[in-house]
Amino acid sequence: MGRIRLSSMPRYKVWGFFMADIAKFKYIEMALKLAEKGRGMTSPNPMVGAVLVKNNRILATGYHRGPGTLHAEAIVIKKAGEKAKNSTLYVNLEPCCHYGRTGPCTDLIIESKIKKVVTSIKDPFEKVNGRGISKLRKAGIEVELGVNKKEAWLLNDSYFIYNENKRPFIILKLSQSIDGRIATADGESKYISSKESLNFVHRLRASYDAVAIGSRTAVSDNPSLTVRNIKGKNPYRIILSRNLVLPNNLILLKNNKDMKTIIVSNSRSIKRFTSKNNPRNIIFWNIKNNGKYHLDISDFLNKANSFNIHSILIEGGADLASSFLKDKLIDKLVVITAPKILGQGISSFKDFGIKKLSEALEFRHMSLEKYGDDWIFTGYPKWK
Amino acid sequence: MGRIRLSSMPRYKVWGFFMADIAKFKYIEMALKLAEKGRGMTSPNPMVGAVLVKNNRILATGYHRGPGTLHAEAIVIKKAGEKAKNSTLYVNLEPCCHYGRTGPCTDLIIESKIKKVVTSIKDPFEKVNGRGISKLRKAGIEVELGVNKKEAWLLNDSYFIYNENKRPFIILKLSQSIDGRIATADGESKYISSKESLNFVHRLRASYDAVAIGSRTAVSDNPSLTVRNIKGKNPYRIILSRNLVLPNNLILLKNNKDMKTIIVSNSRSIKRFTSKNNPRNIIFWNIKNNGKYHLDISDFLNKANSFNIHSILIEGGADLASSFLKDKLIDKLVVITAPKILGQGISSFKDFGIKKLSEALEFRHMSLEKYGDDWIFTGYPKWK
Repeated sequence: MGRIRLSSMPRYKVWGFFMADIAKFKYIEMALKLAEKGRGMTSPNPMVGAVLVKNNRILATGYHRGPGTLHAEAIVIKKAGEKAKNSTLYVNLEPCCHYGRTGPCTDLIIESKIKKVVTSIKDPFEKVNGRGISKLRKAGIEVELGVNKKEAWLLNDSYFIYNENKRPFIILKLSQSIDGRIATADGESKYISSKESLNFVHRLRASYDAVAIGSRTAVSDNPSLTVRNIKGKNPYRIILSRNLVLPNNLILLKNNKDMKTIIVSNSRSIKRFTSKNNPRNIIFWNIKNNGKYHLDISDFLNKANSFNIHSILIEGGADLASSFLKDKLIDKLVVITAPKILGQGISSFKDFGIKKLSEALEFRHMSLEKYGDDWIFTGYPKWK
Repeated sequence: MGRIRLSSMPRYKVWGFFMADIAKFKYIEMALKLAEKGRGMTSPNPMVGAVLVKNNRILATGYHRGPGTLHAEAIVIKKAGEKAKNSTLYVNLEPCCHYGRTGPCTDLIIESKIKKVVTSIKDPFEKVNGRGISKLRKAGIEVELGVNKKEAWLLNDSYFIYNENKRPFIILKLSQSIDGRIATADGESKYISSKESLNFVHRLRASYDAVAIGSRTAVSDNPSLTVRNIKGKNPYRIILSRNLVLPNNLILLKNNKDMKTIIVSNSRSIKRFTSKNNPRNIIFWNIKNNGKYHLDISDFLNKANSFNIHSILIEGGADLASSFLKDKLIDKLVVITAPKILGQGISSFKDFGIKKLSEALEFRHMSLEKYGDDWIFTGYPKWK
């Protein structure tokens, strides 16, 4: 088919043609915004929003609220009832076609006689991965794929990368001065960044399954790693430590009513620690050593995976971050920079083997946003 | 006088009132843009633009093109001729009232029977500094001061700071990775930043009287420090070096047809250097030592001042920058950050005595701009 010659169309058709094309972006953007409402609640499922439209009128909107609850598609179909017939479904992810905790959405779509499905991106989950779209097409439903694909990928970045790698998605966040220092030489780091950035950090925490820190950060910052300032679910709180020399008064050990503090170490250190201390409700993960000074990161990730933790936010310090960097295990980097110069102090990154400028770690899908006086860089490392 | 009650005014007057108020910003912004055309040409004079307006019609526009040429005010008055009578003059800096290379602009304004002068900011030059405005007011001319004051200050930042400190304005520029490295451990730094940022650097060079580097940067980067990629005047090129161990093939020594390369060192090193080398047309500045390892920065600044160099762009390296930082002599900082991580290498700043977070160097008039994938931070240090 060649180009559509607008000049040969009656006026109302030209208008309608444009409107339909603008409309699909409008409704998919609406679906993306609806999906976003489920942030922090849907794991291990992705965030999905849906809009059901007939004759340019919205019949129903909905979003997925988490495992075991209805999928977004099922919600809008249920809401619309009989009216769903001949309507168009806008949804930011390919509808599922498998029996999970709920039935396949494709079946519901076919049954309700929806005419067309507009969606952003294929579901990478191995039981779906294009099969949902095939099934709909075989049933005579028109499917348009790829509308706002990049935005849809970015929204569920951890879900896509998890399904690609079959290991937890790792996001590294750090707050630094312009000159790349995360703390003074004495380890003082509270707070380099502004209040606005702090709210951003809390939103970030609420987005992922777990937050992880090294023992040095646990001791020097004594953080609570909970979600404050904003509404959201607390993530699991993970301390990775080979030697496990932790004072008893750590907030992470004391404030653990929700039983979400996890200590990761080797069997010897855990034995010694539990014989001396009696921390309540702490979860211990016993993992292998890697050489003389480190824990085995891939053993840790396997443990996390089997615990259904699919995304981990690394909040520091430089040692922990560099272990992940050395193994090329950082999937996403968030760097908050405050407009300050320290001139000395702890560097935000440690040596991870780069000798030449041409070897420098670069990024894809980069963004830069201002938060108060700070700016926040986000990017996905291009590992070579 | 109380608030102006718009409701009691005839309609056309309300309209006129608002229009006049919007107009003054419009014409001052125009003057600022005209002034900008003189960038790099006006030193030691400031950049000044002027717009002459009568009955909301522009009679003439103009800008200052450099020492010895007409001031912006004189240009527009000359262009407008008799028509200047009863007009309003918009100019981004207080008109001068002293005899310099040209006569006082205040006299021209009074003679031409201009009715009103709208200006942004007082001229800090000690022979003017409010006297121009007083003289106009005494002659019965209405003067409005302070329109777009901040923009006017930023445009001529080096001029204002020079007049405040009575020493050359110092701007430090560096290009770094996200993690604050200006080069790899081996000193490789060409080019961390993008092509877009490089154009920015050349525009920066063309804006100031001189560019200065340390000997290590001269040797490792072998830069030409000329203005390329864009149109503009070459600044003076200064190498500061205590020991003056420079290879003969340095571009700065060889390409010196414009006789703008200046070598700054102590008498002993200069003697030794000139006895061995025979560089053509090089200017030598003989300055004092400061302790065992450094040159005396304030002696250097005095020399520059007497050479009519009123603004110096420090382009590296970290040693030279830290000498100026230690003495709190940096007036403006420009940090170009490329979205790369090196993990190790030469730090963008060296220790300059900051021990606590609360002592961190902070900035006023901060801005952040994107250039390609890079971002450029600009700020004026708040020295304590």
